[in-house]
Amino acid sequence: GEFAKIDHHRQLRTGFPEVIWGSGKTTEQIAAIIQAMRQKASVVMATRIEQDVAEQLQAEIDGLVYYPLARICALSTSETIVTHPGIISILTAGTADLPVAEEAAITAQLCGFKVKRLWDIGVAGIHRLLSHRQVIYEANVLIVVAGMEGALPSVVAGMADCPVIGVPTSIGYGTSFGGVAPLLTMLNSCATGIGVVNIDNGFGAAMLAGQILRTASKLSKN
Amino acid sequence: GEFAKIDHHRQLRTGFPEVIWGSGKTTEQIAAIIQAMRQKASVVMATRIEQDVAEQLQAEIDGLVYYPLARICALSTSETIVTHPGIISILTAGTADLPVAEEAAITAQLCGFKVKRLWDIGVAGIHRLLSHRQVIYEANVLIVVAGMEGALPSVVAGMADCPVIGVPTSIGYGTSFGGVAPLLTMLNSCATGIGVVNIDNGFGAAMLAGQILRTASKLSKN
Amino acid sequence: GEFAKIDHHRQLRTGFPEVIWGSGKTTEQIAAIIQAMRQKASVVMATRIEQDVAEQLQAEIDGLVYYPLARICALSTSETIVTHPGIISILTAGTADLPVAEEAAITAQLCGFKVKRLWDIGVAGIHRLLSHRQVIYEANVLIVVAGMEGALPSVVAGMADCPVIGVPTSIGYGTSFGGVAPLLTMLNSCATGIGVVNIDNGFGAAMLAGQILRTASKLSKN
Amino acid sequence: GEFAKIDHHRQLRTGFPEVIWGSGKTTEQIAAIIQAMRQKASVVMATRIEQDVAEQLQAEIDGLVYYPLARICALSTSETIVTHPGIISILTAGTADLPVAEEAAITAQLCGFKVKRLWDIGVAGIHRLLSHRQVIYEANVLIVVAGMEGALPSVVAGMADCPVIGVPTSIGYGTSFGGVAPLLTMLNSCATGIGVVNIDNGFGAAMLAGQILRTASKLSKN
Amino acid sequence: GEFAKIDHHRQLRTGFPEVIWGSGKTTEQIAAIIQAMRQKASVVMATRIEQDVAEQLQAEIDGLVYYPLARICALSTSETIVTHPGIISILTAGTADLPVAEEAAITAQLCGFKVKRLWDIGVAGIHRLLSHRQVIYEANVLIVVAGMEGALPSVVAGMADCPVIGVPTSIGYGTSFGGVAPLLTMLNSCATGIGVVNIDNGFGAAMLAGQILRTASKLSKN
Amino acid sequence: GEFAKIDHHRQLRTGFPEVIWGSGKTTEQIAAIIQAMRQKASVVMATRIEQDVAEQLQAEIDGLVYYPLARICALSTSETIVTHPGIISILTAGTADLPVAEEAAITAQLCGFKVKRLWDIGVAGIHRLLSHRQVIYEANVLIVVAGMEGALPSVVAGMADCPVIGVPTSIGYGTSFGGVAPLLTMLNSCATGIGVVNIDNGFGAAMLAGQILRTASKLSKN
Amino acid sequence: GEFAKIDHHRQLRTGFPEVIWGSGKTTEQIAAIIQAMRQKASVVMATRIEQDVAEQLQAEIDGLVYYPLARICALSTSETIVTHPGIISILTAGTADLPVAEEAAITAQLCGFKVKRLWDIGVAGIHRLLSHRQVIYEANVLIVVAGMEGALPSVVAGMADCPVIGVPTSIGYGTSFGGVAPLLTMLNSCATGIGVVNIDNGFGAAMLAGQILRTASKLSKN
Amino acid sequence: GEFAKIDHHRQLRTGFPEVIWGSGKTTEQIAAIIQAMRQKASVVMATRIEQDVAEQLQAEIDGLVYYPLARICALSTSETIVTHPGIISILTAGTADLPVAEEAAITAQLCGFKVKRLWDIGVAGIHRLLSHRQVIYEANVLIVVAGMEGALPSVVAGMADCPVIGVPTSIGYGTSFGGVAPLLTMLNSCATGIGVVNIDNGFGAAMLAGQILRTASKLSKN
Ligand SMILES: Nc1ncnc2c1ncn2[C@@H]1O[C@H](COP(=O)(O)O)[C@@H](O)[C@H]1O
Ligand SMILES: Nc1ncnc2c1ncn2[C@@H]1O[C@H](COP(=O)(O)O)[C@@H](O)[C@H]1O
Ligand SMILES: Nc1ncnc2c1ncn2[C@@H]1O[C@H](COP(=O)(O)O)[C@@H](O)[C@H]1O
Ligand SMILES: Nc1ncnc2c1ncn2[C@@H]1O[C@H](COP(=O)(O)O)[C@@H](O)[C@H]1O
Ligand SMILES: [Mg+2]
Ligand SMILES: [Mg+2]
Ligand SMILES: [Mg+2]
Ligand SMILES: [Mg+2]
Ligand SMILES: [Mg+2]
Ligand SMILES: [Mg+2]
Ligand SMILES: [Mg+2]
Ligand SMILES: [Mg+2]
Repeated sequence: GEFAKIDHHRQLRTGFPEVIWGSGKTTEQIAAIIQAMRQKASVVMATRIEQDVAEQLQAEIDGLVYYPLARICALSTSETIVTHPGIISILTAGTADLPVAEEAAITAQLCGFKVKRLWDIGVAGIHRLLSHRQVIYEANVLIVVAGMEGALPSVVAGMADCPVIGVPTSIGYGTSFGGVAPLLTMLNSCATGIGVVNIDNGFGAAMLAGQILRTASKLSKN
Repeated sequence: GEFAKIDHHRQLRTGFPEVIWGSGKTTEQIAAIIQAMRQKASVVMATRIEQDVAEQLQAEIDGLVYYPLARICALSTSETIVTHPGIISILTAGTADLPVAEEAAITAQLCGFKVKRLWDIGVAGIHRLLSHRQVIYEANVLIVVAGMEGALPSVVAGMADCPVIGVPTSIGYGTSFGGVAPLLTMLNSCATGIGVVNIDNGFGAAMLAGQILRTASKLSKN
Repeated sequence: GEFAKIDHHRQLRTGFPEVIWGSGKTTEQIAAIIQAMRQKASVVMATRIEQDVAEQLQAEIDGLVYYPLARICALSTSETIVTHPGIISILTAGTADLPVAEEAAITAQLCGFKVKRLWDIGVAGIHRLLSHRQVIYEANVLIVVAGMEGALPSVVAGMADCPVIGVPTSIGYGTSFGGVAPLLTMLNSCATGIGVVNIDNGFGAAMLAGQILRTASKLSKN
Repeated sequence: GEFAKIDHHRQLRTGFPEVIWGSGKTTEQIAAIIQAMRQKASVVMATRIEQDVAEQLQAEIDGLVYYPLARICALSTSETIVTHPGIISILTAGTADLPVAEEAAITAQLCGFKVKRLWDIGVAGIHRLLSHRQVIYEANVLIVVAGMEGALPSVVAGMADCPVIGVPTSIGYGTSFGGVAPLLTMLNSCATGIGVVNIDNGFGAAMLAGQILRTASKLSKN
Repeated sequence: GEFAKIDHHRQLRTGFPEVIWGSGKTTEQIAAIIQAMRQKASVVMATRIEQDVAEQLQAEIDGLVYYPLARICALSTSETIVTHPGIISILTAGTADLPVAEEAAITAQLCGFKVKRLWDIGVAGIHRLLSHRQVIYEANVLIVVAGMEGALPSVVAGMADCPVIGVPTSIGYGTSFGGVAPLLTMLNSCATGIGVVNIDNGFGAAMLAGQILRTASKLSKN
Repeated sequence: GEFAKIDHHRQLRTGFPEVIWGSGKTTEQIAAIIQAMRQKASVVMATRIEQDVAEQLQAEIDGLVYYPLARICALSTSETIVTHPGIISILTAGTADLPVAEEAAITAQLCGFKVKRLWDIGVAGIHRLLSHRQVIYEANVLIVVAGMEGALPSVVAGMADCPVIGVPTSIGYGTSFGGVAPLLTMLNSCATGIGVVNIDNGFGAAMLAGQILRTASKLSKN
Repeated sequence: GEFAKIDHHRQLRTGFPEVIWGSGKTTEQIAAIIQAMRQKASVVMATRIEQDVAEQLQAEIDGLVYYPLARICALSTSETIVTHPGIISILTAGTADLPVAEEAAITAQLCGFKVKRLWDIGVAGIHRLLSHRQVIYEANVLIVVAGMEGALPSVVAGMADCPVIGVPTSIGYGTSFGGVAPLLTMLNSCATGIGVVNIDNGFGAAMLAGQILRTASKLSKN
Repeated sequence: GEFAKIDHHRQLRTGFPEVIWGSGKTTEQIAAIIQAMRQKASVVMATRIEQDVAEQLQAEIDGLVYYPLARICALSTSETIVTHPGIISILTAGTADLPVAEEAAITAQLCGFKVKRLWDIGVAGIHRLLSHRQVIYEANVLIVVAGMEGALPSVVAGMADCPVIGVPTSIGYGTSFGGVAPLLTMLNSCATGIGVVNIDNGFGAAMLAGQILRTASKLSKN
């Protein structure tokens, strides 16, 4: 019964290494997994790491970087080196959605993708979105992060000619039910071309965006 | 235990007479209530009346008009006579939302209000809405009817300078959960100035819109 | 990716400036947005501000007023200056609903509306409501705030001849499910003329009430 | 594995015989159980019997009476013979709640209790309730049947000095969720002295009311 | 807008005075309401009072008694004086249900009723219940308190010839969903004679039990 | 894209062949799968087959037997040949639970297990259960089928010294929510030794019971 | 108020024309929209068209093709002409998921994409999936359609190095809650690279897959 | 009203003694129950005991052992003494599921069963599971513990020829809804032979596994 079986083979199979999900693991477990993975993986990263856990990990592991807004720890400087073609543009409806959007942004950058950020352009002031439409037109994949009623992906997907990844957030209160309201909005969108991920799952959105760009690269090589 | 106690006094108290809700009543009960109300009320109407029930009622009650799309029966020609100032504009996101929107429109017209209709301008093609923005600017109250993700009221309320009444519809499937998805969207709207009514409740939306315009009239007389 | 795009244009479009929603924002973000808005808006306010955050904001921003019961920070003395005609009467079912009701009251006052308050007149002692019926008759808009079973708006709307805004609160336990019970009550009301807002959304209720009174002003000018 | 084990002993233990619940049983099973019970029980009754099933049962079983509104079949004329002291008053909020109320009324009468009926006095016209308050004062137990928002038991319990049994009905649409809305209303009532039964469970309400009056008889004999 | 309108008249109407619900009120508000009520009511009590709040209240209010397990504060020694005929027997399924059961027990005693207690006789060891069946037979009303699957009221109601009040508790985890599981169990009971109250609502159960015994007394006097 | 890939290998791996789930398949698809499987499997069976579909299948497939109460079609006479040691006893709470119980019984018999049936011994008359306790003591596995509040498995598991499989049924109405109420009851049982299967899943219960007896056989051979 | 505002511009903006959603529209409305669109769009198609509606439409509209399993009507022979590079592979867990999978397949083919189909390879017989792994390796986008527990996308995404689109279906019963169970499974997948669409939304999955392949084309042109 | 009625008789009836559920009990209550049970039971254990409570209990009770990961206190060294034939193999999908798995493992060991542990073999890397298939083949009962999407039991049950007990955990976020997602997955499994227990109920899984192995012993003695 050893506590973790690292999937070293995943990068070969899927193009991306396993990533450590910090929730529900002890600091010791996280540290041990990072040490074991650094032997084999091009990038080692852990999500959902709070500030105090990060500090304990950094004390123990050389070169570990912490991204506080994204709550990510990583052993990699690849963030600045773009190794895949294409642009992932990340949009948020509000300011409070930033942590989720940054989880997506840092994940994508650590995996070698180019990221553009556009925050706080929710549909209550539709001109904000329209005046930034260039960002939408230039993107190859769009990650749209929204809490409360989560209507932004619908409007964006109606304007974009690339895939849209909807990320509902738990930002809101009362009948937002911890992100269920924006989740349902995104799943029921009358616009097409939207794939939805779990509430607050910025990481998963980045992985899907990366997978889309990788498929594009491979196809273009044929 | 007589089966219905008509609230003849309601018009005096609230400005609007009681309206018969057709669901769950026998045709005989509906007919009897209409006959009893016609003595006293300026307009007598019943909602949620299916075609076959309407025909039975018409066979029995002189002058009863049926509006099939709205599923309303009424004893009144006041539909054409506008007796209150102000415009109620009714918008739908899709074509399938029409029955609910017509329930609102006919109710408002029967109660003496001026109604404008604008159908199928959902947010997946935001230019459709923008190119009809004049309808929004001219309205004194907006009733916005939407199923699926129900994002239209948010965008409209961000453009309008009058109250917006959101009516979620049961149009959709899967995770629309019979209208719960658009209901949550409307309740969580990050735009302000929206009041929400029950799923498919076109009637209630018209009543609230009417109450808003009546208050406006009264205030303007002071 | 700057963290906030203030919608300076909103007041022109909708009659009301953007209001800062304090939840999920850092104190630094809130302070920066307040400073940016004070240049342009007639009233600057932030809701959902806890006592300790308010104190930090006040240390940094001159003239910032804090309303602890309503949990609102504002840069404005307009509270005392009524600039719009009409009366918004705010009722609560119980004493524990006060914070939500005060959020509505302070918001409305800061936006220049006249407010009357009537607390703790829930339906379990219906005579309490009947003996204050004058408040209902004098109102131009009613905001009715209730938790637990949330039956007060139904009874009030059956007595009033003006629009009623129902605000469900999260006051209760067990099957109140954080305000779902009173929300459903208000949405299913057999009385007409009720628009419902999100659970605990005193702010949104005030905005809708304000929009209703502004429509009245505009109509009376035609 | 015989298909039914009749609880002939129940009347001795609890004061009331077993009652056949018609749903999910074949007509043959219902007929056989009625025949087996008629040997031993003072009153034999089956609930949830549709018209066509009733007719088949009547063709086979002598003296079987059918109450169509209540959807009850019974072998008993005790309906007219009151054998227990006290009055059970049954109220409904609307006309559409009658079938559930009649299930309660017929059950109670068949078990030998005196019943008063008062239909359609919902809270949207509170004067209807107030003008019939004598019915509330004279009752020893109140059964209050309501769909939609289900607020009637709260108001009644605030006026009555006897136990109130709340029966939510599935009458309504959209967010009534098949009776969940009035159920939650009744469970969260801020008035006291209310016991709630399952949605549409008129039968169970009558049984509880009967048990309450039997307790009264027993106490008075001590 | 004074913060509380005490319903001094309630005892006359319903037989029981208003009781203060401690949740969501400040200590100052609770203290002020207690002082105002002590002028007029025979018993003054507040529920849902935590230890530290109780101590502050006791420092300020002479003679205030605190029942820590029941979390009730009261101005009354009537607990020991039984003024109504009949026995309320209170049963729990497990040890962890005690706080809710004691809320019921102390409330009933403060209102002048005789209470018997029987703890931890859940259905997983049915012999425990059977060997205490005398408690069930002697009761005039039964309050049955159960969390987890909440099956105890069904079994008890099948043995008892008096009304049973089911009180679901939030004791449990996972799919108990904070008491929803036992609530549904009690509402769906195939045994009859059960009225259900809100999750953890020991107070409401006692009030209903009291109302039942009061009705019994009144009837027996006729 | 051939429409079905039969898992001929399953019997080798798990001890039981694949079984055809009739829902959502056309009659042609079911017939084709039966024909393909009869080449290789010891028993071929299909569940959830309505009467009319069964008749069409029988017209086409030689020797196909239909069990109407269980809604099962099978190619096998093994029902009468017991090939595994041990007894599976199947209990129901009510008469209306029979179809689910028979689905379990026929499945188990077709797979070569000995079955005992005991119907209609729900907890509202606990003596019915106690007087049949011998059935519980003789069983090696118990399948307990219950709708409404679903309390029977808890009581049975407290008496049995063998595994109990709880099968919630959709029998009930209102707050039974199509079987959710008994499902939650069984999952939250304070008795131990209960494994739960999907609502109305008599088939799955039989498979689990069979797997338990097969493991027992294998163990006893070591 | 004309009943539909066709978004003729959508193909220019998003690469795909508007598609008619057949639910909730009258046959006349659908026919009229098809006629209006055929002037301008390269492919005209309507989803959710039942057999009888299709026949009425075909009687009126020349050249209209109907795909009964997919429930799609279309004016186009482009199905056979592949105009975009890349392969969309569509997998189902079971046979009953075919209609949803075919909705995806026909939509993709009508829009000019190459489709591979692989039906009935659910996880209960994991060897079926493993023995077809070549299909997974050759795909550029995978659409994985599954009802019941919906685990297939998780396993597939762990093997694939391209994006996976998860489509939950309403196939199942009891706790599948009309597709909620597989939806949650897909949203919570511990495998990465999965985007989820609404329950039964084969159409939306095809649109997202198409958008992904179009992005690839565009990227390769840069 | 003594606070606990220990079911000393349970071991005789069911083969296993009562086990103390630590939640919702005071430390004094737990200590007293342990002392009372140690007189009579072969093993005394309490679950859901946090570190600090364990330390208080150990200070008071001689020989009490604490298993921190499993959160179990026990008076027994039987952990090392296997008294029943057969192997219970416990698998987890992830590292974060360990506490629940250990609750199962320690419970089973304390009751005299042989346990094998296999952690972190979730379906996103299916080869991990396949390369440990020997563990599955050697088991007599499998306990499969999984959070997030909870797909592991389906895949395992398709490979195993023994009963599988599915234990959903609350590990996950957003739409895992505290373990509801894996619970539904397990209940809807298209693999057979799975019995499900409550979310996080490692204890209950061990008890069911034990009951299965005991049945095997008994059968082999016949
Ligand atoms: N379509 C509708 N939706 C909601 N409420 C309605 C509708 N039509 C009528 N009503 C209201 O339902 C109430 C009548 O209920 P009843 O006494 O059952 O006829 C009246 O107060 C009406 O105002
Ligand atoms: N309408 C009803 N609603 C709820 N329970 C009922 C109803 N009618 C009869 N019952 C109860 O259902 C039980 C009969 O269940 P069964 O054995 O399935 O006939 C009896 O205990 C009755 O007391
Ligand atoms: N089966 C389907 N599921 C979801 N959306 C669809 C489906 N078929 C068409 N649509 C979309 O529904 C919208 C049409 O809505 P409407 O205006 O009501 O016809 C279009 O934007 C389509 O892209
Ligand atoms: N972790 C656990 N989860 C579920 N049930 C438990 C657990 N630990 C003990 N139990 C059961 O809970 C019951 C004890 O309940 P109580 O009387 O409240 O202590 C016993 O029947 C135990 O078998
Ligand atoms: Mg903003
Ligand atoms: Mg349209
Ligand atoms: Mg009060
Ligand atoms: Mg009425
Ligand atoms: Mg106990
Ligand atoms: Mg029965
Ligand atoms: Mg298959
Ligand atoms: Mg892992």
